[in-house]
Amino acid sequence: MPKLEKYSRELNYSYAVGIYPSIEAVKYIPEHCIKLIVDESACGEGFEKLKEECINKNIRIEIAGKFLKQLSQKGNAHCAMVFNKVYKKPMNNTNHIVLHNISDAGNLGTILRTSLGFGIKDIVIIKPATDVYDTQTIRASMGAMFKLRVFEYNSFDEYIDEFKDRLLYPFMLNAKYILQKFDTKILNKNYSLIFGNEGSGLPEKFLNIGESIKIEHSSEIDSLNLGNAVSIALYKFTEGNY
Amino acid sequence: MPKLEKYSRELNYSYAVGIYPSIEAVKYIPEHCIKLIVDESACGEGFEKLKEECINKNIRIEIAGKFLKQLSQKGNAHCAMVFNKVYKKPMNNTNHIVLHNISDAGNLGTILRTSLGFGIKDIVIIKPATDVYDTQTIRASMGAMFKLRVFEYNSFDEYIDEFKDRLLYPFMLNAKYILQKFDTKILNKNYSLIFGNEGSGLPEKFLNIGESIKIEHSSEIDSLNLGNAVSIALYKFTEGNY
Repeated sequence: MPKLEKYSRELNYSYAVGIYPSIEAVKYIPEHCIKLIVDESACGEGFEKLKEECINKNIRIEIAGKFLKQLSQKGNAHCAMVFNKVYKKPMNNTNHIVLHNISDAGNLGTILRTSLGFGIKDIVIIKPATDVYDTQTIRASMGAMFKLRVFEYNSFDEYIDEFKDRLLYPFMLNAKYILQKFDTKILNKNYSLIFGNEGSGLPEKFLNIGESIKIEHSSEIDSLNLGNAVSIALYKFTEGNY
Repeated sequence: MPKLEKYSRELNYSYAVGIYPSIEAVKYIPEHCIKLIVDESACGEGFEKLKEECINKNIRIEIAGKFLKQLSQKGNAHCAMVFNKVYKKPMNNTNHIVLHNISDAGNLGTILRTSLGFGIKDIVIIKPATDVYDTQTIRASMGAMFKLRVFEYNSFDEYIDEFKDRLLYPFMLNAKYILQKFDTKILNKNYSLIFGNEGSGLPEKFLNIGESIKIEHSSEIDSLNLGNAVSIALYKFTEGNY
């Protein structure tokens, strides 16, 4: 393998920075793990467990303290797993979260984690969007990323051409239905919950796609934070499963 | 007024950094605004509106470019409102959000905004906790802060001594009730929704306070992000109002 580079979208590998994300990588995508890089001060119970897992799964451990310092934004990570990026297509017989032009890496990571928490494992990203393999996203997802199927499409049309027979629910401020009164008992097919960019939301054309929904809130705020909106929608759509 | 200092908890004033938070400060707490500081490159429609509001309300405008650069973390804010910190006690006949030892400034700001969005205007912070007047919190709240009553208590006991006759709902991973099955129609008094620290949650003793609730999620994640948990609880408890 050539010399490691600071992460960028063009690379075909990325980094799970920190002990916990590295452990999750070894556990869930061992076949894609390339090597673990560590600095001299890496130690502790979590690290010993990680080392053991790497040895069990024949994953090489390499010292690269200077590079790690560059990699870890707050400069406090003592290890990182280098792994090959994989994009997995969503399944047809499952529910999806669709993120249209999402721009914040941390937001995306938290959304991945919450989505996994509510049992939705297929995540669709419509580009242009933040890179799902950004190291900050991986970190914020707390390993959830490695248990999901995440795929990027160049446009919503490209996505919907592949997944025709499903319920579509774009979340918009000027939507037709309000979530608070929405009856999820009527769901008779798999669904896709669709969310727009943090600042600008979904384009107007989504008002004519499926059945648009808004989360009603007081006029004292302009909109909910995207991550909160997604988590509320996930809660509501899965509430009946419990 | 003496020379402005970089914000710290000890100061009796803080800064609303950026055009939007500054406008919200002039609009909702003009009586607490001290002065607007700007740099030489401040311009644009929003800034003109802000300037006009300041003139209307007799708020001085001062050039302080170098200090602003220090103040704005990403170095891209061209103005900030300097304002006196005020702590307003929660009301007795309202619902409250109680944040026990919350530690992340950005999280807190987003929670303030979402809470306002769902009509809960009384926020209680149990110390030790991040400072509600941290400039990052003010920014993340997008001005919501100025429309809320926010108060800090040294302990939960101190808070509850003042607000005895209400329903208490601590949110905990090992709670008695699950939110998905919780019937909010039974609420016959004002309530307080209580949340713990991002990492450690609420102390065990809260299992014996009021009726503990958990948001059920798959075992594939350890816990929900605090901000998401609060937003889901707010949604559920106010769903019947719409």
